[in-house]
Amino acid sequence: MNFKILHNDNLARTAILEFPRGSIQTPAFMPVGTHGTVKSLSPDELHQSGAEIMLSNTYHLYLRPGSEVIKNAGGLHGFVNWQHPILTDSGGFQVFSLAKLRKIEEHGVWFQSHIDGSSHFIGPEESINIQKALGADIIMAFDECTPYPSTYEYTEKSLELTTSWAAKCREIELSNQSLFGIIQGGMYKDLRERSVSEITSMGFDGYAVGGLSVGEPKEMMHDLIRHTVPLLHVDKPRYLMGVGDIVDILTAVEAGVDMFDCVMPTRNARNGTLFTSQGRMNIKQSSYRSDLSPIDSSCSCYTCRNFSRAYLSHLYHSKEILSMRLNTIHNLHFYFDFFVKMRQAINENTFKEFKSYHEGSALKLPQGV
Amino acid sequence: MNFKILHNDNLARTAILEFPRGSIQTPAFMPVGTHGTVKSLSPDELHQSGAEIMLSNTYHLYLRPGSEVIKNAGGLHGFVNWQHPILTDSGGFQVFSLAKLRKIEEHGVWFQSHIDGSSHFIGPEESINIQKALGADIIMAFDECTPYPSTYEYTEKSLELTTSWAAKCREIELSNQSLFGIIQGGMYKDLRERSVSEITSMGFDGYAVGGLSVGEPKEMMHDLIRHTVPLLHVDKPRYLMGVGDIVDILTAVEAGVDMFDCVMPTRNARNGTLFTSQGRMNIKQSSYRSDLSPIDSSCSCYTCRNFSRAYLSHLYHSKEILSMRLNTIHNLHFYFDFFVKMRQAINENTFKEFKSYHEGSALKLPQGV
Repeated sequence: MNFKILHNDNLARTAILEFPRGSIQTPAFMPVGTHGTVKSLSPDELHQSGAEIMLSNTYHLYLRPGSEVIKNAGGLHGFVNWQHPILTDSGGFQVFSLAKLRKIEEHGVWFQSHIDGSSHFIGPEESINIQKALGADIIMAFDECTPYPSTYEYTEKSLELTTSWAAKCREIELSNQSLFGIIQGGMYKDLRERSVSEITSMGFDGYAVGGLSVGEPKEMMHDLIRHTVPLLHVDKPRYLMGVGDIVDILTAVEAGVDMFDCVMPTRNARNGTLFTSQGRMNIKQSSYRSDLSPIDSSCSCYTCRNFSRAYLSHLYHSKEILSMRLNTIHNLHFYFDFFVKMRQAINENTFKEFKSYHEGSALKLPQGV
Repeated sequence: MNFKILHNDNLARTAILEFPRGSIQTPAFMPVGTHGTVKSLSPDELHQSGAEIMLSNTYHLYLRPGSEVIKNAGGLHGFVNWQHPILTDSGGFQVFSLAKLRKIEEHGVWFQSHIDGSSHFIGPEESINIQKALGADIIMAFDECTPYPSTYEYTEKSLELTTSWAAKCREIELSNQSLFGIIQGGMYKDLRERSVSEITSMGFDGYAVGGLSVGEPKEMMHDLIRHTVPLLHVDKPRYLMGVGDIVDILTAVEAGVDMFDCVMPTRNARNGTLFTSQGRMNIKQSSYRSDLSPIDSSCSCYTCRNFSRAYLSHLYHSKEILSMRLNTIHNLHFYFDFFVKMRQAINENTFKEFKSYHEGSALKLPQGV
C-alpha cells in the first residue's frame, strides 16, 4: 500500500491510496457488503456506481460460508468476483453487537453465532488469521468497540484490552495486506489521547477511529472527531468507522479523515429513502405515484436516466426486488458524486464553502417522511 | 404485425413476428413481468439474456399503479423502459384465480381486488380499453379460463361466454396493436373444435390456446395440444398460454405452437432451482457450499462466467437479493438458449431428434430436490 497526499486545505486533505488491485481517491466512501455483496448490486454495478473499495464483515463471512471456502476460492476477491480493493473489519464490532452470550477474556471473546447458536472464540490472532484467509487489501486490528454510555473506569479497561489486542495483531506476519490500528477511548478526551499514543506507537499502516456514532449526541461525536483525528500521524490514512451521515462526514473531513464506511445510502435505499440535491425524499409518499420526473433531474445515475418516480413508486409498492436495486444505484451514485465534489473542493481550497453549502441541503427535512 | 413462416419441419415451424419495436423469432419464450418487470432484472439485463418480448399482466397493472398512470407515461414501454415488444394478457385469468368474490355476468365479471378489497368490473370492453391504455404490441381477448375439472355442461357454457366476449373484443377499433383470440373448451375435444371454429371465424391477428396446464394430467394436456393446435390457421401465430415445462414445450412445438409464456424459469430461480444441461439442480443442497465450479460449465451466461456454485449457495443461504438475480439470469439464459437450439433443429429438419434428446435430459430427476 502506498499513501500519497495530494493537497491540503487546512486540515482537510485529498490523497491517493495505491494497491496492486487499484487506487482509491480519498476522502473515500466504502460501501458495505456484509456478506461480500453490497445488497442487490452485482460487482460490475458497484464499480460503475463509483466504488473503488468495498468493506466486508469478517464476523459474517467467518460464520457463513466460513473462511476455508473463501480461501479456496482465491480469497474474497475471487469468491465474490470483485477485483478491486477490499477492507475487512476485525469482527469485533459484530461479536459485541450481534452475537449472543459473550464472554470476554484476556485473549479474546467467546460468543454464540446469531445464525445457529454454535459456540465460537475470536481474539486478535483468530481475527487476523481469518482476515488473512479472506485476503482483503486492508485488514483491521481486533478491538472492543466501547458501548455508549460507559463509565470512565469501564472505558479505560476496554481501552487497555484494545491496546493489548492491537499489540498481538501487530506481531502477526502479513504479506500483501495492510493492517490498520483502531483508536478507542469512548467519550473521554484524555482516554482518546492515550489510545492514540499507545496505538500509533506500534506503527500500523493506517489508523481508524472506532467507538463513535454509537448513540452519543452529534455534538459530542463532532467534538471528539475534532479532538482525536488531528492527533493521528499526518502521513498515514485515517478512517472513521461506521460514520456515514453527510453532516458527520463533512465535520470529519474538515478534521482530516480520509476514509468512511456506512450502510446509510444502501439501507435507506432499500427502505425507499432517496438522497437528492434538494434533500431526502421517500418514494413511499403517495404524491410520487403519478410523478413522471426522475428522482433528481440533476442526477446522471442509471436510475435517474431511465426511470420515473412513478415507476419507482410502483416498484416499491409492488415489493419488486428491482425497487431496492434501482434505489441503491441512485443513493450510492449520490454518495460517490458527493465525494468527487468534496475532493474537488479540497483541491481548490474551497472546502469550507463546500461544507457550509452541503450542511444546508443535507439538513433539510426529508420530503415525505 | 407481420408474420412470416421461415421453415416447416412436419408441423413444427420457425417464423418471424415483426413489429415496429422489434422482431421476434419463433418458437419464442416470453418471460413474465407481472408488474411490468421480470422480478429482479433490469430491462437491459432482460434483453441481454435473450428476451425479444415480455409478457405483463393487465389485472395487476390495472389495480396498481392503474392504467391512467401508465398511459400518461407513454404506455407500458415508456413506464418500465422496455423498448421491445410486449404482450399483455386480458386480465381474465387473474380475475378468476386471484380476485375475491367474483360474480360472472353476461357483460363481464365483478370482483374484489386482492390488494385492498375494492370492487371492480372487467368485461371485454373494459379489458381491451385497459390494454389500449397500456399500449402493448399484442393484446388478448377477454375470456374465461375454464377450471379443471369442469363438467361438459359448465365447459360448454363457459365456451359460449368466451365466444361472445371474443366477438365484443373484436369489434373494438385498434391502432398499432394486434389482437389475439383465445381458444377454450376445457378437456373436451369436440368443444375445443367448436371453440376453434367460432374464434377463428372472427379473424384475429393470432390465436392462443388457453385453459391448459390448469391441473389436468400431462397426457391429457398433450393429447389436447396435438388435437387442437393443428386446427388453427397455419398462417397466423399460435400461442400456448401459461405452459413452460420443457417437455410440454417440445410437445407443443411439434404440434405447431409458436409462442409460450411461463413463470417457471424465473420463479424456480428465486427458489434456488436451476436448469442445467444435465437436468435440474437445487443450490440449497449442502454439497454446493464448497463447490467452486459454475452452475453449468457449458453455459455462457453472466452468472456462470463470473460466479461459482459455492458463491451462489452462500448468497442463497444469506438471503441476498443478488441470489435471485443471478439465478434468474441463468435460468432465463437456459430457456432462451434452448429456444435458439430448437429453432435451429427445426430449420435443419432435425426437430424429432432434438425432442427425443431433450425429453431425456429434462426428465432427469432434479439434483438435490
